[in-house]
Amino acid sequence: MTLGNPPIRRLGVAGLGTVGAALVKLLAARGDFAPSGERVVISGVCARSRAASRGADISPYVWFDDPVALARSPEIDIFVELIGGSEGVARAAVAAALEAGKPVVTANKALIAHHGAALAALAEARGVPLLFEAAVMGGTPAVKLVREALVADQIHSIAGILNGTCNYILSEMEQSGSSFSQVLKQAQALGYAEADPTTDIGGFDAAHKIVILAALAFGGAPDWGAAQVEGLQGVDLLDIRLAKDLGYRIKLVAAAARSAGGVAVRVHPTLLPLDHPLARADGALNALFIQGESTGRMFIQGPGAGPGPTAAAVAADIADVLAGAQRPVFQQPAVKLSQVRAAAPKALATKAYIRLIVRDEPGVIASVSETLAECGLSIDSFLQKHMEDSIGVPIVLTTHPAAEPVIFDAIARIGALPTMITPPRMLRIANI
Amino acid sequence: MTLGNPPIRRLGVAGLGTVGAALVKLLAARGDFAPSGERVVISGVCARSRAASRGADISPYVWFDDPVALARSPEIDIFVELIGGSEGVARAAVAAALEAGKPVVTANKALIAHHGAALAALAEARGVPLLFEAAVMGGTPAVKLVREALVADQIHSIAGILNGTCNYILSEMEQSGSSFSQVLKQAQALGYAEADPTTDIGGFDAAHKIVILAALAFGGAPDWGAAQVEGLQGVDLLDIRLAKDLGYRIKLVAAAARSAGGVAVRVHPTLLPLDHPLARADGALNALFIQGESTGRMFIQGPGAGPGPTAAAVAADIADVLAGAQRPVFQQPAVKLSQVRAAAPKALATKAYIRLIVRDEPGVIASVSETLAECGLSIDSFLQKHMEDSIGVPIVLTTHPAAEPVIFDAIARIGALPTMITPPRMLRIANI
Repeated sequence: MTLGNPPIRRLGVAGLGTVGAALVKLLAARGDFAPSGERVVISGVCARSRAASRGADISPYVWFDDPVALARSPEIDIFVELIGGSEGVARAAVAAALEAGKPVVTANKALIAHHGAALAALAEARGVPLLFEAAVMGGTPAVKLVREALVADQIHSIAGILNGTCNYILSEMEQSGSSFSQVLKQAQALGYAEADPTTDIGGFDAAHKIVILAALAFGGAPDWGAAQVEGLQGVDLLDIRLAKDLGYRIKLVAAAARSAGGVAVRVHPTLLPLDHPLARADGALNALFIQGESTGRMFIQGPGAGPGPTAAAVAADIADVLAGAQRPVFQQPAVKLSQVRAAAPKALATKAYIRLIVRDEPGVIASVSETLAECGLSIDSFLQKHMEDSIGVPIVLTTHPAAEPVIFDAIARIGALPTMITPPRMLRIANI
Repeated sequence: MTLGNPPIRRLGVAGLGTVGAALVKLLAARGDFAPSGERVVISGVCARSRAASRGADISPYVWFDDPVALARSPEIDIFVELIGGSEGVARAAVAAALEAGKPVVTANKALIAHHGAALAALAEARGVPLLFEAAVMGGTPAVKLVREALVADQIHSIAGILNGTCNYILSEMEQSGSSFSQVLKQAQALGYAEADPTTDIGGFDAAHKIVILAALAFGGAPDWGAAQVEGLQGVDLLDIRLAKDLGYRIKLVAAAARSAGGVAVRVHPTLLPLDHPLARADGALNALFIQGESTGRMFIQGPGAGPGPTAAAVAADIADVLAGAQRPVFQQPAVKLSQVRAAAPKALATKAYIRLIVRDEPGVIASVSETLAECGLSIDSFLQKHMEDSIGVPIVLTTHPAAEPVIFDAIARIGALPTMITPPRMLRIANI
């Protein structure tokens, strides 16, 4: 290093997909972004294919075939993991970097949701940071918000739209009037959805993110096993339309809420009042709504994915590494982290939207309302609608809040009534 | 300190208004909030009156009559300044604490907007942090967002609703149909506005906050002198109504934007499209909309004031002090901070809303449009409205974007037309 030049911090970047390529370009253009005055340069890189076309020049950097070797290389100061996946080389390389005493920055939500506690223990034992802002909401600083800005508050609940693909599909269904499968095909053609869309559509991507936020918000270890996940499959255009008539929009909401019964961490399609900020986050946007004891209601919205925003979040984490804060990875040292008690289903209360398609004959409504009364489920509103393209008569009920087992019992009984043409469809109505 | 107990950090808290009292209560209840495991306790306090009723028990703490003496006390580790005001004891006490090598946490927006660079230089010379999250948007982490989360991005513009009093007044005018002075009186009676409302209503409070955010966003020193400030005075109910007819809501917007001509830092009443997130932040909410090169559009909304949220922000800064990050106070070391070049008025372009009240006689519209054409100002839309309670005929024009001197010239000429009953009223339309 020449005298007078700023000190240099060398990165090893494993994974050169769109985010990795954007990070390469960002650092080539503005490696001097860190307020500390240090210059951030890439030293070594690693990816599945060296020859792949990525719109970023990687020829100045040392090529590694093995991410674990890159993670351990004495030529790097910070390891950036952009490989993805909870197991395999991503996990091995992150662990290797931490074991070698190197700070790690990762965008890998699956890895942190599944193995966050063990990796945090390793990072803290070696005294190095493990940062993962880019793992949740891409360029929007959800992790920093919950981990740092709300650290002195008691958070009651977090609810977010954390998967841009699902949000795009729901927005498109509403706007174009196309079915779920039509819009999914179109999203795949446009590159907004993967060829195998299970991770997004099944709610697992959003679940990884809410598991991480729940750990930060409630002071526990990330607990993938406690997450209850329902995806978008089976959200009908009919329900999008009927919900709107009732003043709601259907979104895939990932939520974590604390109650006397414990913490519930869940992903499911949810009816949100049309004027709720989360209901207005359209297209590929991500959004997060937090309710805290001191802070009240806070809302943040921004790009949840995309190479530019995600690379900027990775770079912000690198600046944080350079600032040298000594913080536990989660809200307390890993040795003290325990699983937060999960709320039992019977402790969960929700308002429900129940949609039936019934034969157009007398007595149907009476039998449905009698069944609900027998179950002790109280009706809040009722809508019967004539629809040209429907095979029967759609009926929608919304209920007052009730324990979920009561709702499931009522649906099972209603579903058994002889006048039902299709099985009842239940969606939860947000209580935020 | 007994063996086995957590290490203790002692605060000196100067200023025991509603925020100070909320901090006392927060720390008494949860002094263990810091993830570092250290216990935060108040050691000394200081306020104008020792006997004042504040709903918080200050008897356990050492009383100081002089905030400067508290700031220098060897019995405190961190100084918390909640006195307020850019000069006088607040400034002296913050400087004294920094000189004594003590980290400072403050909620004082005026102090940072006026003297941020000098205080940053002092803090950095002593190697201690100076943090001020609570100075901007109360409990909503605007400072952390811009300083840390967007540190690797190139921010183009920031626009915020940063004064809850003004936002409450505008929301109430729209909803109740009452005049500015009626709603102001009501807000004063409810304690939402001060007896002397100049700081809020005049736009100065919002200006302090945007000056701080502009410094963080654009890498300069806070530059109070370059801020252009227009307050709420003179926003008529008539304009709120007419703007709504055109699809806009009037908000007091504090904005900082970078262009080829420099950075413009301004506060003024602004027409926002009704579907813009900032237009939907109602009542006492604060909100911030940021456009960045990599990140795109980001929006955050939350409580902008109030004892609970503000005390939680102060406590979050204390947790950051304990984490020990080594960061410049602004985006680069104070010795390198310079004023960012301010944009000249002729470099500023805006779309304008121009409202006239004219005599109901032939040829008025022709003379107005001829005058605008002579000035080279192009009309985007035109609205003439019959209003029962108006002394003449209200006419509203909106223009295409034009340099501000062109707009002011046109308004002066139109104002001189003999058919004008009142002087023309111009409001800027947001270009976000």
